[in-house]
Amino acid sequence: MPRYRLTVEYDGTPYVGWQRQDNGPSIQGHLEDAALRLTGESVGVTGAGRTDAGVHALGQVAHLDLEREWDAFRLMEALNFHLKPEAIAIVDSIAAEPDFHARFSATARHYRYLIANRRAPLTVDRDRQLEVTKELDAEAMHAAAQILVGRHDFTSFRASLCQAKSPVKTLSRLTVTRWDRGVIAIEASAPSFLHHQVRNIVGSLLFVGSGKWRADDLQAALDARDRAAAGPTAPAHGLYLIAVDYDGVRPK
Amino acid sequence: MPRYRLTVEYDGTPYVGWQRQDNGPSIQGHLEDAALRLTGESVGVTGAGRTDAGVHALGQVAHLDLEREWDAFRLMEALNFHLKPEAIAIVDSIAAEPDFHARFSATARHYRYLIANRRAPLTVDRDRQLEVTKELDAEAMHAAAQILVGRHDFTSFRASLCQAKSPVKTLSRLTVTRWDRGVIAIEASAPSFLHHQVRNIVGSLLFVGSGKWRADDLQAALDARDRAAAGPTAPAHGLYLIAVDYDGVRPK
Repeated sequence: MPRYRLTVEYDGTPYVGWQRQDNGPSIQGHLEDAALRLTGESVGVTGAGRTDAGVHALGQVAHLDLEREWDAFRLMEALNFHLKPEAIAIVDSIAAEPDFHARFSATARHYRYLIANRRAPLTVDRDRQLEVTKELDAEAMHAAAQILVGRHDFTSFRASLCQAKSPVKTLSRLTVTRWDRGVIAIEASAPSFLHHQVRNIVGSLLFVGSGKWRADDLQAALDARDRAAAGPTAPAHGLYLIAVDYDGVRPK
Repeated sequence: MPRYRLTVEYDGTPYVGWQRQDNGPSIQGHLEDAALRLTGESVGVTGAGRTDAGVHALGQVAHLDLEREWDAFRLMEALNFHLKPEAIAIVDSIAAEPDFHARFSATARHYRYLIANRRAPLTVDRDRQLEVTKELDAEAMHAAAQILVGRHDFTSFRASLCQAKSPVKTLSRLTVTRWDRGVIAIEASAPSFLHHQVRNIVGSLLFVGSGKWRADDLQAALDARDRAAAGPTAPAHGLYLIAVDYDGVRPK
């Protein structure tokens, strides 16, 4: 059966998360339903990352197998038609090799977390950024963040429900930058992440930014290998899955 | 009575526009109601520009007079409290001179129009950008746009209901740039604009971008001094009032 690779964008707000679940609408479920309406086939759609409820994606990647050959562009158009009016869209589609796997072939994942660091409540960006009214020191956050870059035991930043075999991961990149209008962007890249790893890192970096922690405290939290030693899990609605790379190449 | 200058941000989607009207909730109405709840005073709030239904603002400016002196920061905080849960927020507040007038003292207004030029429907940016699936030539749009820069009779780009005394306006700047992810941004600056002028200009630039018009046709539309000679009014939801300048200085 021919396999297709889809790049998927979504607003995570109205969904229970990527994964099909009994308790509400999911991105995976809507994609599978759209494929069923289009082809009449019960199609499984596999994603690169199982984003949580409220987490957005600009470049989630998924694969699916269809019985007949499709022109990849026409497949994208047809799936987008059947996805309406959901806040889920296929932004790219290509024919994939039979051994391509959205999750297991991925060589890097890129996440971004947006913080609105200002007094005023959000309007146009509501549910798109985390509101933090206390002034944050983005430079201190960036400097401390470099402690986490590299290969470490990330037990302190791992959800208790995380199913990964090992807590050892290699964080390739972790940057904190100020954008216009008081927005702070935290960007994290790694071959793979533990469950809640980005949100738990953000929770600790917020301690650094607000002055509650110094860089030493972040180092101690990492060294403790104890979830209770690190900061809280930052809310989902500031997080975006930006892109997934395959063989070092980023899909559109 | 002390006068205050407010910088106001809003999501235009749920409102009938800036101006208080009988047919639904307005930004001006919500601001006046918030001021009433805060002070017990019936306060008139005057804006720099009367944005239409669906138009957003990152930097609308308004003024209001209050009976007692307020610390400007505390006034902002208190108004934001009373504005909840509306998608309207005061992002800056300063004490103004008694002769400051949000509309008549303004020396420049800056608008931005965002176009999502891609096949896929919008998700996270829905109601924030105009969706145009046909590929646009942003370079041709920018080149043609320069025809409109300067002092001209803009009758062809003026709403029939426009109340301005003269159709002659000076467009200081009109640029068309490609951003990431297929977004095209049209930015327009002028001391003042006619009603629907930016949206009508965008409608004509879309003709240029899609190849329906060449630059010559835009020139002919301007020269015709006839609304029927120009393109349609572009939808409101792609438009943002970005900033208003006073004495050449842009408020925060």
